[in-house]
Amino acid sequence: MNTLIEFKNILVVGVGLIGGSIIRSLKDTNFSGKVYGIDNNKEAITLAHSHGFIENKTENIPSDLDGLLVIFSVPVLSIEDAINKIEGIIESEDVLYTDTLSVKSSILSALRNLDQNILNRFVLSHPIAGSEKSGFEASASDLFKNRLTIICPHEGNSKADLNKIEGFWNSLGSYTKKLSANDHDELFAKTSHMPHVISYALMDSLFQDLNEKTFLYSGGSLEDYTRIASSDPQMWKDIMVANDKSILSSIASFKNSLDKLSKLIEDNNSDGLIDFFSFVKQARDKSISIEDN
Amino acid sequence: MNTLIEFKNILVVGVGLIGGSIIRSLKDTNFSGKVYGIDNNKEAITLAHSHGFIENKTENIPSDLDGLLVIFSVPVLSIEDAINKIEGIIESEDVLYTDTLSVKSSILSALRNLDQNILNRFVLSHPIAGSEKSGFEASASDLFKNRLTIICPHEGNSKADLNKIEGFWNSLGSYTKKLSANDHDELFAKTSHMPHVISYALMDSLFQDLNEKTFLYSGGSLEDYTRIASSDPQMWKDIMVANDKSILSSIASFKNSLDKLSKLIEDNNSDGLIDFFSFVKQARDKSISIEDN
Repeated sequence: MNTLIEFKNILVVGVGLIGGSIIRSLKDTNFSGKVYGIDNNKEAITLAHSHGFIENKTENIPSDLDGLLVIFSVPVLSIEDAINKIEGIIESEDVLYTDTLSVKSSILSALRNLDQNILNRFVLSHPIAGSEKSGFEASASDLFKNRLTIICPHEGNSKADLNKIEGFWNSLGSYTKKLSANDHDELFAKTSHMPHVISYALMDSLFQDLNEKTFLYSGGSLEDYTRIASSDPQMWKDIMVANDKSILSSIASFKNSLDKLSKLIEDNNSDGLIDFFSFVKQARDKSISIEDN
Repeated sequence: MNTLIEFKNILVVGVGLIGGSIIRSLKDTNFSGKVYGIDNNKEAITLAHSHGFIENKTENIPSDLDGLLVIFSVPVLSIEDAINKIEGIIESEDVLYTDTLSVKSSILSALRNLDQNILNRFVLSHPIAGSEKSGFEASASDLFKNRLTIICPHEGNSKADLNKIEGFWNSLGSYTKKLSANDHDELFAKTSHMPHVISYALMDSLFQDLNEKTFLYSGGSLEDYTRIASSDPQMWKDIMVANDKSILSSIASFKNSLDKLSKLIEDNNSDGLIDFFSFVKQARDKSISIEDN
Protein backbone atom coordinates (compact mmCIF):
# COMPACT_ATOMS: atom_id res chain seq x y z
CA MET A 1 0.00 0.00 0.00
CA ASN A 2 1.08 3.53 -0.73
CA THR A 3 1.60 4.82 2.81
CA LEU A 4 1.14 8.47 1.80
CA ILE A 5 -2.51 7.85 1.00
CA GLU A 6 -4.37 7.47 4.28
CA PHE A 7 -7.72 6.58 2.76
CA LYS A 8 -9.49 3.31 2.14
CA ASN A 9 -11.82 4.67 -0.52
CA ILE A 10 -11.58 7.54 -2.97
CA LEU A 11 -14.53 9.01 -4.87
CA VAL A 12 -13.76 11.40 -7.72
CA VAL A 13 -16.65 13.68 -8.65
CA GLY A 14 -16.13 14.82 -12.25
CA VAL A 15 -13.98 12.49 -14.32
CA GLY A 16 -12.70 15.04 -16.87
CA LEU A 17 -9.15 16.14 -17.54
CA ILE A 18 -8.20 16.57 -13.86
CA GLY A 19 -10.46 13.97 -12.26
CA GLY A 20 -9.55 11.48 -14.99
CA SER A 21 -5.86 12.12 -14.40
CA ILE A 22 -6.36 11.49 -10.67
CA ILE A 23 -7.89 8.03 -11.21
CA ARG A 24 -5.17 7.15 -13.73
CA SER A 25 -2.46 8.30 -11.30
CA LEU A 26 -4.01 6.27 -8.47
CA LYS A 27 -3.68 3.14 -10.58
CA ASP A 28 -0.05 4.02 -11.29
CA THR A 29 0.75 4.52 -7.59
CA ASN A 30 -0.70 1.08 -6.77
CA PHE A 31 -3.23 2.57 -4.37
CA SER A 32 -4.56 -0.46 -2.53
CA GLY A 33 -7.97 0.99 -1.66
CA LYS A 34 -10.97 1.34 -3.90
CA VAL A 35 -11.59 4.14 -6.38
CA TYR A 36 -15.02 5.34 -7.53
CA GLY A 37 -15.99 8.02 -10.01
CA ILE A 38 -19.11 9.88 -11.03
CA ASP A 39 -19.74 12.27 -13.88
CA ASN A 40 -22.67 13.77 -15.79
CA ASN A 41 -21.12 12.19 -18.85
CA LYS A 42 -22.06 8.50 -18.55
CA GLU A 43 -19.61 7.49 -21.27
CA ALA A 44 -16.66 8.74 -19.22
CA ILE A 45 -17.76 6.43 -16.39
CA THR A 46 -18.17 3.42 -18.69
CA LEU A 47 -14.74 4.11 -20.20
CA ALA A 48 -13.02 4.64 -16.83
CA HIS A 49 -14.57 1.41 -15.54
CA SER A 50 -13.56 -0.55 -18.64
CA HIS A 51 -9.93 0.61 -18.14
CA GLY A 52 -10.10 -0.67 -14.56
CA PHE A 53 -9.64 2.80 -13.07
CA ILE A 54 -12.88 2.76 -11.05
CA GLU A 55 -15.00 0.12 -9.30
CA ASN A 56 -18.40 1.35 -10.41
CA LYS A 57 -19.92 0.78 -13.83
CA THR A 58 -22.88 3.13 -13.23
CA GLU A 59 -23.73 6.06 -10.96
CA ASN A 60 -24.50 3.63 -8.13
CA ILE A 61 -21.97 4.23 -5.36
CA PRO A 62 -22.10 2.34 -2.04
CA SER A 63 -23.40 4.70 0.66
CA ASP A 64 -21.34 3.23 3.52
CA LEU A 65 -17.77 3.82 2.27
CA ASP A 66 -15.54 4.60 5.25
CA GLY A 67 -12.02 6.06 5.26
CA LEU A 68 -13.37 8.00 2.29
CA LEU A 69 -11.83 10.91 0.37
CA VAL A 70 -14.22 12.76 -1.95
CA ILE A 71 -12.49 14.89 -4.60
CA PHE A 72 -14.58 17.49 -6.43
CA SER A 73 -13.30 18.17 -9.92
CA VAL A 74 -16.21 20.01 -11.49
CA PRO A 75 -16.61 23.49 -13.01
CA VAL A 76 -16.25 26.12 -10.23
CA LEU A 77 -19.91 27.19 -10.20
CA SER A 78 -21.16 23.58 -10.01
CA ILE A 79 -19.52 22.87 -6.66
CA GLU A 80 -22.61 23.45 -4.47
CA ASP A 81 -24.77 21.18 -6.60
CA ALA A 82 -22.05 18.56 -6.59
CA ILE A 83 -21.70 18.68 -2.78
CA ASN A 84 -25.46 18.40 -2.35
CA LYS A 85 -25.53 15.43 -4.69
CA ILE A 86 -22.79 13.64 -2.75
CA GLU A 87 -24.49 14.42 0.56
CA GLY A 88 -27.52 12.63 -0.82
CA ILE A 89 -25.46 9.51 -1.63
CA ILE A 90 -22.85 9.10 1.11
CA GLU A 91 -24.09 8.19 4.61
CA SER A 92 -20.71 7.45 6.17
CA GLU A 93 -19.35 10.08 8.62
CA ASP A 94 -15.75 9.01 8.04
CA VAL A 95 -15.22 11.31 5.08
CA LEU A 96 -12.74 14.03 4.07
CA TYR A 97 -13.39 16.36 1.13
CA THR A 98 -11.09 18.19 -1.22
CA ASP A 99 -11.31 19.77 -4.69
CA THR A 100 -9.11 20.73 -7.61
CA LEU A 101 -10.69 24.04 -8.61
CA SER A 102 -9.02 27.24 -9.78
CA VAL A 103 -10.97 29.69 -7.59
CA LYS A 104 -11.11 29.31 -3.81
CA SER A 105 -12.95 32.19 -2.09
CA SER A 106 -16.25 31.45 -3.79
CA ILE A 107 -16.06 27.78 -2.75
CA LEU A 108 -15.21 28.81 0.80
CA SER A 109 -18.26 31.10 0.87
CA ALA A 110 -20.44 28.30 -0.45
CA LEU A 111 -19.08 25.92 2.21
CA ARG A 112 -19.75 28.45 4.99
CA ASN A 113 -23.37 28.54 3.84
CA LEU A 114 -23.64 24.74 4.02
CA ASP A 115 -23.29 22.93 7.34
CA GLN A 116 -20.24 23.51 9.56
CA ASN A 117 -19.52 19.80 9.51
CA ILE A 118 -18.73 19.76 5.79
CA LEU A 119 -16.73 23.00 6.01
CA ASN A 120 -14.50 21.52 8.71
CA ARG A 121 -13.82 18.36 6.74
CA PHE A 122 -13.18 20.17 3.44
CA VAL A 123 -9.53 20.94 2.61
CA LEU A 124 -9.30 23.27 -0.41
CA SER A 125 -6.64 22.30 -2.92
CA HIS A 126 -5.62 23.34 -6.41
CA PRO A 127 -3.17 21.30 -8.47
CA ILE A 128 -1.42 23.71 -10.88
CA ALA A 129 -1.64 21.36 -13.81
CA GLY A 130 -3.82 21.25 -16.85
CA SER A 131 -4.05 21.44 -20.58
CA GLU A 132 -5.98 23.32 -23.21
CA LYS A 133 -7.60 19.94 -23.88
CA SER A 134 -10.47 18.78 -21.73
CA GLY A 135 -12.42 15.66 -20.86
CA PHE A 136 -11.49 12.17 -19.71
CA GLU A 137 -9.89 11.31 -23.07
CA ALA A 138 -7.30 14.09 -22.50
CA SER A 139 -6.41 12.90 -18.99
CA ALA A 140 -2.95 11.51 -18.20
CA SER A 141 -1.44 9.57 -15.33
CA ASP A 142 1.61 11.86 -15.07
CA LEU A 143 -0.29 15.17 -15.04
CA PHE A 144 0.67 15.96 -11.43
CA LYS A 145 4.26 14.68 -11.47
CA ASN A 146 6.61 17.42 -10.24
CA ARG A 147 3.78 19.94 -10.39
CA LEU A 148 2.74 22.28 -7.60
CA THR A 149 -0.49 21.86 -5.65
CA ILE A 150 -1.70 24.81 -3.59
CA ILE A 151 -3.48 23.99 -0.33
CA CYS A 152 -5.71 26.76 1.12
CA PRO A 153 -6.22 26.04 4.83
CA HIS A 154 -9.19 27.69 6.56
CA GLU A 155 -10.35 28.17 10.17
CA GLY A 156 -12.16 24.82 10.36
CA ASN A 157 -9.34 22.56 9.13
CA SER A 158 -7.40 20.36 11.55
CA LYS A 159 -3.66 19.86 11.12
CA ALA A 160 -4.26 16.12 10.73
CA ASP A 161 -6.69 16.61 7.84
CA LEU A 162 -4.36 19.08 6.09
CA ASN A 163 -1.55 16.51 6.36
CA LYS A 164 -3.73 13.77 4.89
CA ILE A 165 -4.56 15.91 1.85
CA GLU A 166 -0.95 17.00 1.37
CA GLY A 167 0.08 13.35 1.60
CA PHE A 168 -2.48 12.47 -1.04
CA TRP A 169 -1.06 15.00 -3.54
CA ASN A 170 2.50 14.01 -2.71
CA SER A 171 1.62 10.42 -3.52
CA LEU A 172 0.60 11.55 -7.05
CA GLY A 173 4.03 13.16 -7.46
CA SER A 174 2.96 16.73 -6.70
CA TYR A 175 4.64 19.07 -4.19
CA THR A 176 2.53 21.38 -2.06
CA LYS A 177 2.54 24.98 -0.85
CA LYS A 178 0.02 26.80 1.35
CA LEU A 179 -1.83 30.06 0.63
CA SER A 180 -4.99 31.60 2.05
CA ALA A 181 -8.02 31.40 -0.25
CA ASN A 182 -7.96 35.18 -0.78
CA ASP A 183 -4.25 35.30 -1.55
CA HIS A 184 -4.69 32.34 -3.90
CA ASP A 185 -7.44 34.06 -5.85
CA GLU A 186 -5.65 37.40 -6.14
CA LEU A 187 -2.42 35.76 -7.20
CA PHE A 188 -3.94 33.36 -9.71
CA ALA A 189 -6.08 36.12 -11.18
CA LYS A 190 -2.77 37.69 -12.22
CA THR A 191 -0.60 34.69 -13.04
CA SER A 192 -3.11 32.29 -14.57
CA HIS A 193 -6.52 33.84 -15.23
CA MET A 194 -5.01 36.98 -16.85
CA PRO A 195 -2.96 34.99 -19.40
CA HIS A 196 -6.20 33.23 -20.37
CA VAL A 197 -8.08 36.55 -20.66
CA ILE A 198 -5.27 37.91 -22.84
CA SER A 199 -5.05 34.82 -24.99
CA TYR A 200 -8.80 34.77 -25.63
CA ALA A 201 -8.79 38.51 -26.43
CA LEU A 202 -5.75 38.25 -28.72
CA MET A 203 -7.27 35.35 -30.64
CA ASP A 204 -10.57 37.21 -30.90
CA SER A 205 -8.86 40.28 -32.41
CA LEU A 206 -6.75 38.15 -34.76
CA PHE A 207 -9.78 36.28 -36.07
CA GLN A 208 -11.71 39.53 -36.54
CA ASP A 209 -8.79 40.88 -38.60
CA LEU A 210 -7.27 37.84 -40.31
CA ASN A 211 -9.87 35.09 -40.19
CA GLU A 212 -8.47 31.77 -41.45
CA LYS A 213 -5.18 33.44 -42.45
CA THR A 214 -4.33 33.76 -38.75
CA PHE A 215 -1.96 30.81 -38.55
CA LEU A 216 -0.95 30.56 -42.22
CA TYR A 217 2.39 32.36 -41.84
CA SER A 218 3.03 32.00 -38.14
CA GLY A 219 5.50 29.14 -38.22
CA GLY A 220 4.43 27.62 -34.92
CA SER A 221 5.15 30.23 -32.23
CA LEU A 222 1.69 31.78 -32.33
CA GLU A 223 0.13 28.33 -31.90
CA ASP A 224 2.17 27.80 -28.74
CA TYR A 225 1.51 31.28 -27.46
CA THR A 226 -2.27 31.02 -27.88
CA ARG A 227 -2.72 27.36 -26.95
CA ILE A 228 -4.68 28.24 -23.78
CA ALA A 229 -7.35 30.02 -25.88
CA SER A 230 -8.52 26.53 -26.88
CA SER A 231 -9.34 25.75 -23.24
CA ASP A 232 -12.78 24.60 -22.12
CA PRO A 233 -15.26 27.53 -22.45
CA GLN A 234 -17.52 26.29 -19.60
CA MET A 235 -14.63 25.94 -17.16
CA TRP A 236 -13.23 29.39 -17.95
CA LYS A 237 -16.65 31.09 -17.94
CA ASP A 238 -17.05 29.81 -14.36
CA ILE A 239 -13.59 31.04 -13.35
CA MET A 240 -14.26 34.51 -14.81
CA VAL A 241 -17.59 34.77 -12.99
CA ALA A 242 -16.31 33.35 -9.68
CA ASN A 243 -13.12 35.44 -9.54
CA ASP A 244 -14.44 38.52 -11.35
CA LYS A 245 -13.19 41.22 -8.97
CA SER A 246 -9.58 40.03 -8.86
CA ILE A 247 -9.54 39.45 -12.62
CA LEU A 248 -10.96 42.91 -13.38
CA SER A 249 -8.34 44.52 -11.18
CA SER A 250 -5.62 42.51 -12.97
CA ILE A 251 -7.00 43.65 -16.34
CA ALA A 252 -6.83 47.27 -15.15
CA SER A 253 -3.21 46.84 -14.08
CA PHE A 254 -2.32 45.14 -17.37
CA LYS A 255 -3.98 47.94 -19.36
CA ASN A 256 -1.86 50.51 -17.52
CA SER A 257 1.28 48.70 -18.63
CA LEU A 258 -0.04 48.26 -22.17
CA ASP A 259 -0.89 51.97 -22.42
CA LYS A 260 2.57 52.91 -21.12
CA LEU A 261 4.16 50.73 -23.81
CA SER A 262 1.79 51.98 -26.56
CA LYS A 263 2.74 55.57 -25.71
CA LEU A 264 6.45 54.74 -26.07
CA ILE A 265 5.79 53.20 -29.50
CA GLU A 266 3.62 56.17 -30.55
CA ASP A 267 6.37 58.60 -29.51
CA ASN A 268 9.10 56.52 -31.20
CA ASN A 269 10.81 56.76 -27.81
CA SER A 270 13.82 54.49 -28.34
CA ASP A 271 15.41 55.06 -24.92
CA GLY A 272 12.07 54.53 -23.20
CA LEU A 273 11.46 51.27 -25.12
CA ILE A 274 14.92 49.94 -24.30
CA ASP A 275 14.35 50.82 -20.62
CA PHE A 276 10.90 49.17 -20.59
CA PHE A 277 12.07 45.95 -22.26
CA SER A 278 15.28 45.81 -20.20
CA PHE A 279 13.38 46.26 -16.92
CA VAL A 280 11.00 43.44 -17.81
CA LYS A 281 13.73 41.12 -19.09
CA GLN A 282 15.92 41.64 -16.01
CA ALA A 283 13.02 41.27 -13.58
CA ARG A 284 11.84 38.13 -15.35
CA ASP A 285 15.26 36.51 -15.59
CA LYS A 286 15.91 37.33 -11.91
CA SER A 287 12.53 36.09 -10.63
CA ILE A 288 12.83 32.84 -12.50
CA SER A 289 16.26 32.16 -11.06
CA ILE A 290 14.84 32.82 -7.54
CA GLU A 291 12.17 30.22 -8.17
CA ASP A 292 14.76 27.74 -9.42
CA ASN A 293 16.72 27.91 -6.15
CA MET B 1 28.59 20.36 -52.93
CA ASN B 2 25.10 21.20 -51.80
CA THR B 3 23.48 21.94 -55.14
CA LEU B 4 20.75 24.10 -53.62
CA ILE B 5 23.31 26.72 -52.63
CA GLU B 6 24.39 28.54 -55.78
CA PHE B 7 27.07 30.65 -54.17
CA LYS B 8 30.83 30.30 -53.86
CA ASN B 9 31.13 32.61 -50.87
CA ILE B 10 28.77 33.59 -48.07
CA LEU B 11 29.30 36.57 -45.77
CA VAL B 12 27.10 36.80 -42.67
CA VAL B 13 26.82 40.31 -41.22
CA GLY B 14 25.89 39.96 -37.56
CA VAL B 15 26.79 36.64 -36.00
CA GLY B 16 24.16 36.57 -33.21
CA LEU B 17 21.35 34.09 -32.68
CA ILE B 18 20.21 34.04 -36.32
CA GLY B 19 23.50 34.77 -38.09
CA GLY B 20 25.29 32.31 -35.82
CA SER B 21 22.69 29.65 -36.58
CA ILE B 22 23.22 30.24 -40.31
CA ILE B 23 26.97 29.62 -40.16
CA ARG B 24 26.43 26.53 -37.99
CA SER B 25 23.81 25.21 -40.43
CA LEU B 26 26.14 25.82 -43.39
CA LYS B 27 28.73 23.60 -41.77
CA ASP B 28 26.09 20.91 -41.21
CA THR B 29 24.97 21.01 -44.86
CA ASN B 30 28.57 20.53 -46.02
CA PHE B 31 28.50 23.76 -48.01
CA SER B 32 31.63 23.52 -50.13
CA GLY B 33 32.19 27.26 -50.54
CA LYS B 34 33.71 29.66 -48.05
CA VAL B 35 31.88 31.32 -45.17
CA TYR B 36 32.83 34.65 -43.60
CA GLY B 37 31.30 36.56 -40.72
CA ILE B 38 31.54 40.01 -39.22
CA ASP B 39 30.07 41.38 -36.02
CA ASN B 40 30.58 44.37 -33.72
CA ASN B 41 31.29 41.81 -31.03
CA LYS B 42 34.86 40.69 -31.75
CA GLU B 43 34.57 37.72 -29.39
CA ALA B 44 31.77 36.21 -31.47
CA ILE B 45 34.08 36.29 -34.51
CA THR B 46 36.99 34.72 -32.61
CA LEU B 47 34.67 32.01 -31.31
CA ALA B 48 33.03 31.32 -34.68
CA HIS B 49 36.47 31.08 -36.28
CA SER B 50 37.80 28.76 -33.57
CA HIS B 51 34.83 26.41 -34.18
CA GLY B 52 35.72 26.36 -37.88
CA PHE B 53 32.45 28.04 -38.91
CA ILE B 54 34.07 31.00 -40.66
CA GLU B 55 37.29 31.61 -42.59
CA ASN B 56 38.22 34.96 -41.06
CA LYS B 57 39.78 35.46 -37.66
CA THR B 58 39.38 39.25 -37.69
CA GLU B 59 37.24 41.84 -39.46
CA ASN B 60 39.48 41.59 -42.52
CA ILE B 61 37.40 40.17 -45.38
CA PRO B 62 38.80 39.74 -48.92
CA SER B 63 37.33 42.45 -51.15
CA ASP B 64 37.22 40.35 -54.32
CA LEU B 65 34.87 37.53 -53.28
CA ASP B 66 32.78 36.47 -56.29
CA GLY B 67 29.63 34.34 -56.37
CA LEU B 68 28.97 36.06 -53.06
CA LEU B 69 25.84 36.04 -50.88
CA VAL B 70 25.78 38.70 -48.16
CA ILE B 71 23.25 38.02 -45.38
CA PHE B 72 22.36 40.88 -43.05
CA SER B 73 21.35 39.69 -39.61
CA VAL B 74 21.54 42.88 -37.58
CA PRO B 75 18.95 44.87 -35.58
CA VAL B 76 16.36 46.35 -37.99
CA LEU B 77 17.45 49.96 -37.58
CA SER B 78 21.13 49.11 -38.18
CA ILE B 79 20.57 47.83 -41.71
CA GLU B 80 21.62 51.04 -43.55
CA ASP B 81 24.85 51.34 -41.59
CA ALA B 82 25.56 47.67 -42.17
CA ILE B 83 24.98 47.97 -45.94
CA ASN B 84 27.24 51.02 -46.14
CA LYS B 85 29.92 49.19 -44.22
CA ILE B 86 29.79 46.21 -46.59
CA GLU B 87 29.82 48.51 -49.64
CA GLY B 88 33.08 49.91 -48.28
CA ILE B 89 34.61 46.42 -48.04
CA ILE B 90 33.33 44.38 -51.03
CA GLU B 91 34.51 45.44 -54.50
CA SER B 92 33.16 42.44 -56.41
CA GLU B 93 30.04 43.05 -58.55
CA ASP B 94 29.02 39.38 -58.41
CA VAL B 95 27.00 39.74 -55.22
CA LEU B 96 23.47 38.99 -54.04
CA TYR B 97 22.09 40.34 -50.76
CA THR B 98 19.49 39.07 -48.35
CA ASP B 99 18.56 39.62 -44.71
CA THR B 100 16.76 37.87 -41.84
CA LEU B 101 14.93 40.82 -40.29
CA SER B 102 11.43 40.97 -38.81
CA VAL B 103 10.30 44.20 -40.50
CA LYS B 104 10.41 44.63 -44.28
CA SER B 105 8.88 47.95 -45.43
CA SER B 106 11.42 50.07 -43.60
CA ILE B 107 14.29 48.10 -45.15
CA LEU B 108 12.72 48.43 -48.58
CA SER B 109 12.46 52.22 -48.09
CA ALA B 110 16.07 52.37 -47.00
CA LEU B 111 17.13 50.33 -50.06
CA ARG B 112 15.17 52.61 -52.39
CA ASN B 113 17.16 55.54 -51.00
CA LEU B 114 20.45 53.76 -51.68
CA ASP B 115 21.54 52.99 -55.23
CA GLN B 116 19.23 51.05 -57.56
CA ASN B 117 21.92 48.45 -58.08
CA ILE B 118 21.81 47.28 -54.47
CA LEU B 119 18.00 47.35 -54.39
CA ASN B 120 17.82 45.07 -57.45
CA ARG B 121 20.24 42.55 -55.98
CA PHE B 122 18.61 42.53 -52.53
CA VAL B 123 16.05 39.76 -51.87
CA LEU B 124 14.21 40.38 -48.60
CA SER B 125 13.76 37.29 -46.45
CA HIS B 126 12.58 36.51 -42.94
CA PRO B 127 13.11 33.10 -41.37
CA ILE B 128 10.35 32.59 -38.78
CA ALA B 129 12.63 31.12 -36.19
CA GLY B 130 14.13 32.47 -33.05
CA SER B 131 14.39 32.23 -29.32
CA GLU B 132 14.09 34.49 -26.31
CA LYS B 133 17.82 33.94 -25.98
CA SER B 134 20.20 36.03 -28.06
CA GLY B 135 23.82 36.12 -29.21
CA PHE B 136 26.13 33.63 -30.91
CA GLU B 137 26.22 31.38 -27.84
CA ALA B 138 22.45 30.78 -28.20
CA SER B 139 22.69 29.88 -31.90
CA ALA B 140 21.91 26.35 -33.13
CA SER B 141 22.51 24.46 -36.36
CA ASP B 142 18.91 23.18 -36.52
CA LEU B 143 17.17 26.53 -35.94
CA PHE B 144 15.72 26.64 -39.48
CA LYS B 145 14.84 22.97 -39.87
CA ASN B 146 11.18 22.61 -40.90
CA ARG B 147 10.60 26.31 -40.18
CA LEU B 148 9.02 28.80 -42.52
CA THR B 149 10.98 31.56 -44.28
CA ILE B 150 9.02 34.42 -45.82
CA ILE B 151 10.43 35.92 -49.03
CA CYS B 152 9.22 39.45 -49.90
CA PRO B 153 9.83 40.03 -53.63
CA HIS B 154 9.94 43.63 -54.86
CA GLU B 155 9.90 45.35 -58.26
CA GLY B 156 13.68 45.11 -58.77
CA ASN B 157 14.11 41.38 -58.10
CA SER B 158 14.72 38.91 -60.93
CA LYS B 159 13.13 35.47 -60.87
CA ALA B 160 16.62 33.93 -60.95
CA ASP B 161 17.73 35.82 -57.84
CA LEU B 162 14.53 34.92 -55.96
CA ASN B 163 15.14 31.27 -56.81
CA LYS B 164 18.72 31.42 -55.55
CA ILE B 165 17.61 32.83 -52.20
CA GLU B 166 14.78 30.33 -51.85
CA GLY B 167 17.24 27.55 -52.65
CA PHE B 168 19.57 28.87 -49.98
CA TRP B 169 16.87 28.68 -47.27
CA ASN B 170 15.69 25.29 -48.50
CA SER B 171 19.23 24.01 -48.12
CA LEU B 172 19.11 24.97 -44.42
CA GLY B 173 15.94 22.89 -44.04
CA SER B 174 13.49 25.78 -44.23
CA TYR B 175 10.42 25.98 -46.50
CA THR B 176 9.47 29.27 -48.11
CA LYS B 177 6.36 31.34 -48.83
CA LYS B 178 6.07 34.73 -50.55
CA LEU B 179 4.39 37.89 -49.26
CA SER B 180 4.72 41.56 -50.20
CA ALA B 181 6.71 43.67 -47.72
CA ASN B 182 3.56 45.55 -46.69
CA ASP B 183 1.48 42.42 -46.20
CA HIS B 184 4.36 40.89 -44.26
CA ASP B 185 4.59 43.84 -41.87
CA GLU B 186 0.85 44.08 -41.27
CA LEU B 187 0.53 40.35 -40.70
CA PHE B 188 3.55 40.00 -38.42
CA ALA B 189 2.50 43.06 -36.42
CA LYS B 190 -0.51 40.98 -35.44
CA THR B 191 0.85 37.46 -35.19
CA SER B 192 4.34 38.08 -33.82
CA HIS B 193 4.95 41.66 -32.70
CA MET B 194 1.63 41.84 -30.78
CA PRO B 195 2.36 38.72 -28.68
CA HIS B 196 5.65 40.36 -27.74
CA VAL B 197 3.94 43.67 -26.84
CA ILE B 198 1.44 41.74 -24.72
CA SER B 199 4.06 39.59 -23.04
CA TYR B 200 6.19 42.63 -22.13
CA ALA B 201 3.12 44.50 -20.84
CA LEU B 202 1.84 41.51 -18.84
CA MET B 203 5.24 40.97 -17.22
CA ASP B 204 5.51 44.68 -16.45
CA SER B 205 2.14 44.68 -14.68
CA LEU B 206 2.93 41.46 -12.78
CA PHE B 207 6.25 42.83 -11.54
CA GLN B 208 4.62 46.10 -10.49
CA ASP B 209 2.06 44.11 -8.48
CA LEU B 210 3.91 40.99 -7.31
CA ASN B 211 7.61 41.71 -7.64
CA GLU B 212 9.71 38.60 -6.95
CA LYS B 213 6.61 36.62 -5.95
CA THR B 214 5.60 36.58 -9.64
CA PHE B 215 6.75 33.04 -10.41
CA LEU B 216 6.68 31.58 -6.89
CA TYR B 217 3.34 29.79 -7.27
CA SER B 218 3.02 29.58 -11.03
CA GLY B 219 4.09 25.99 -11.52
CA GLY B 220 5.67 26.51 -14.94
CA SER B 221 2.90 27.66 -17.28
CA LEU B 222 3.48 31.36 -16.70
CA GLU B 223 7.17 30.89 -17.48
CA ASP B 224 6.29 29.33 -20.82
CA TYR B 225 3.64 31.90 -21.57
CA THR B 226 5.94 34.87 -20.89
CA ARG B 227 9.17 33.43 -22.30
CA ILE B 228 9.27 35.95 -25.15
CA ALA B 229 9.38 38.84 -22.64
CA SER B 230 13.02 37.83 -22.04
CA SER B 231 13.86 38.61 -25.69
CA ASP B 232 16.61 41.01 -26.69
CA PRO B 233 15.53 44.61 -25.79
CA GLN B 234 17.58 46.22 -28.59
CA MET B 235 16.13 43.96 -31.26
CA TRP B 236 12.56 44.51 -30.12
CA LYS B 237 12.97 48.27 -29.65
CA ASP B 238 14.01 48.42 -33.33
CA ILE B 239 11.01 46.33 -34.42
CA MET B 240 8.58 48.55 -32.46
CA VAL B 241 10.06 51.70 -33.98
CA ALA B 242 10.29 50.33 -37.53
CA ASN B 243 6.79 48.80 -37.61
CA ASP B 244 5.08 51.29 -35.30
CA LYS B 245 1.97 52.00 -37.38
CA SER B 246 0.98 48.38 -37.92
CA ILE B 247 1.74 47.52 -34.29
CA LEU B 248 -0.33 50.45 -32.95
CA SER B 249 -3.26 49.41 -35.10
CA SER B 250 -2.95 45.82 -33.82
CA ILE B 251 -2.90 47.12 -30.24
CA ALA B 252 -6.10 49.07 -30.92
CA SER B 253 -7.80 45.97 -32.31
CA PHE B 254 -6.63 43.87 -29.35
CA LYS B 255 -7.89 46.47 -26.87
CA ASN B 256 -11.33 46.32 -28.49
CA SER B 257 -11.45 42.59 -27.90
CA LEU B 258 -10.11 42.98 -24.36
CA ASP B 259 -12.73 45.63 -23.54
CA LYS B 260 -15.48 43.42 -24.95
CA LEU B 261 -14.34 40.56 -22.72
CA SER B 262 -13.90 42.82 -19.66
CA LYS B 263 -17.45 44.06 -20.07
CA LEU B 264 -18.77 40.48 -20.11
CA ILE B 265 -16.88 39.73 -16.89
CA GLU B 266 -18.09 42.97 -15.28
CA ASP B 267 -21.69 42.12 -16.16
CA ASN B 268 -21.32 38.51 -14.99
CA ASN B 269 -22.71 37.68 -18.43
CA SER B 270 -22.42 33.87 -18.44
CA ASP B 271 -23.99 33.33 -21.85
CA GLY B 272 -21.86 36.06 -23.39
CA LEU B 273 -18.68 34.57 -21.88
CA ILE B 274 -19.51 31.10 -23.13
CA ASP B 275 -20.19 32.53 -26.60
CA PHE B 276 -16.95 34.54 -26.61
CA PHE B 277 -14.78 31.62 -25.49
CA SER B 278 -16.55 29.15 -27.78
CA PHE B 279 -16.14 31.41 -30.82
CA VAL B 280 -12.41 31.77 -30.14
CA LYS B 281 -11.88 28.08 -29.40
CA GLN B 282 -13.74 26.96 -32.53
CA ALA B 283 -12.03 29.51 -34.77
CA ARG B 284 -8.62 28.58 -33.36
CA ASP B 285 -9.11 24.83 -33.60
CA LYS B 286 -10.43 25.22 -37.16
CA SER B 287 -7.64 27.56 -38.36
CA ILE B 288 -4.95 25.33 -36.97
CA SER B 289 -6.37 22.31 -38.74
CA ILE B 290 -6.41 24.31 -42.02
CA GLU B 291 -2.74 25.07 -41.56
CA ASP B 292 -1.98 21.43 -40.90
CA ASN B 293 -3.42 20.35 -44.24
